[in-house]
Amino acid sequence: MKIDVTKKFLIVGLGLLGGCYAMALKKKGYTVYAITKDQKDIDYAIENNLIDEGSVHIDEKLIGSADIIVFALYPHIFKEWIKENGHLINQGTVITDVTGVKSCIVYEIQAMLKKGVEFIAAHPMAGREVSGVQNSDDSIFKEANYIVVPTENNTFGAIELCKELGEILGFASVSVLDPEKHDEMIAFLSQLTHCIAVSLMCANDNPGLVFYTGDSFRDLTRIAKINDEMWSELFLANKDALLKEMDKYRKTFDKLYECVKNNDREEMRSMMRISSERRDKFNKKEKSDLL
Amino acid sequence: MKIDVTKKFLIVGLGLLGGCYAMALKKKGYTVYAITKDQKDIDYAIENNLIDEGSVHIDEKLIGSADIIVFALYPHIFKEWIKENGHLINQGTVITDVTGVKSCIVYEIQAMLKKGVEFIAAHPMAGREVSGVQNSDDSIFKEANYIVVPTENNTFGAIELCKELGEILGFASVSVLDPEKHDEMIAFLSQLTHCIAVSLMCANDNPGLVFYTGDSFRDLTRIAKINDEMWSELFLANKDALLKEMDKYRKTFDKLYECVKNNDREEMRSMMRISSERRDKFNKKEKSDLL
Repeated sequence: MKIDVTKKFLIVGLGLLGGCYAMALKKKGYTVYAITKDQKDIDYAIENNLIDEGSVHIDEKLIGSADIIVFALYPHIFKEWIKENGHLINQGTVITDVTGVKSCIVYEIQAMLKKGVEFIAAHPMAGREVSGVQNSDDSIFKEANYIVVPTENNTFGAIELCKELGEILGFASVSVLDPEKHDEMIAFLSQLTHCIAVSLMCANDNPGLVFYTGDSFRDLTRIAKINDEMWSELFLANKDALLKEMDKYRKTFDKLYECVKNNDREEMRSMMRISSERRDKFNKKEKSDLL
Repeated sequence: MKIDVTKKFLIVGLGLLGGCYAMALKKKGYTVYAITKDQKDIDYAIENNLIDEGSVHIDEKLIGSADIIVFALYPHIFKEWIKENGHLINQGTVITDVTGVKSCIVYEIQAMLKKGVEFIAAHPMAGREVSGVQNSDDSIFKEANYIVVPTENNTFGAIELCKELGEILGFASVSVLDPEKHDEMIAFLSQLTHCIAVSLMCANDNPGLVFYTGDSFRDLTRIAKINDEMWSELFLANKDALLKEMDKYRKTFDKLYECVKNNDREEMRSMMRISSERRDKFNKKEKSDLL
């Protein structure tokens, strides 16, 4: 199956990411349906031409007409949804998701689905500090990475289709990682950074500091404004990988602390040089992204 | 003394910040001299209309003609310079600086100066990830804070003059803090954030991660590219305050670690909510900065 414009999408969960998917797909001429819990979100999405039709119920007609279903739900709700309603999905339908953790859901979901319905997991590495379909903006995909996360159960066809979806949505790059590698990567690059930002904000309650804040502090804590319901679920869903990365980071922070304490300027400078060299590579990647 | 356009400035140390000062002052019509160690920096600055005249020597004529001298040197070089050449500064001259730490230099410098020469310390909280006069860009002052850091030895006149200088340079806000409060603030807002970014970059040497990096990681590590000579000196010059802030942060990070380890979702969410609320205030400040 190639994703030609006759294909119909169903988005389950019309929050920020679901809304961004809908916006990008509608712009490309696809038919987009949505199932979500609040009627006001359906109304908003129809009025703003993000979807063609939507329902706050488990609408069998919408589920049955979709060629591709995108789940944009919290991990535990995604699992419950499939458990209760998975049987309503037509044979031949491909389902995918936007979940930020993978090992803890992908195998379970695949095992629950009936023969002929394939789940190919994906992680669009994009987001905003605001939530809700009302804040949808598909331009967040433009400089972001889209990761297809197949297991051994996935077919070549579904993997290719999911990669094509990443391109249709307008991501800067599309890549493939297995669930375990994905979770390790996300523990370091995303979850650990959020842990650091939250810890930093909790470490000092001097509101007078606001006045003196420079860019470095603002940049570092941009992600400290965090959806506690979602992120606490994601942290615990990826607990082992996250604890491992937190441990490694804690060790290097402690090493730097000892350098300061013991006036070990040479070791401190050596850490700073390693840091600068590594960070430089991330910059180069930023530039080549745009080429 | 008010800073009318007949006033002459001498910048000692024509690096990035010295160059930004020169650029901003020349644009406002002031006469600007410079003393720095490399002739190529003098040549660049004259060719690009950043200064009127410069020297790589301890030029008594330039030092003697300046009404205001700005020192943009590493802390220990600043101290050495004053020790060796302070006697060449005319009575009535006001000197100021751009140093990022204060308690460890301001009292010593003030004690070394002859009667009639006043040192009023200042900290322009602006910078770039690149160095050198060739990267001068006075627009970095536009959204930044300028902090005047007087001691009990300073006169009302010098404090007012230094505040006026912050405004002339184009800073978004000008405020006043004593050296100890300044160093505490800088330990948390600037030095600790650099410690975190460096530790994070040193914690994981998987170059493959570059490919998957999202905005949150890039924002958090922007400052991980760091001038090791300068920052190691600044860290050690502010050692006690920095260790105190590192300790406080380590405790909150450890608390979050325990939450993940013990599946304590409620405590984790409570930390995330505190973090979000506090970060929100920093955002409000960002907006009001622009009003």
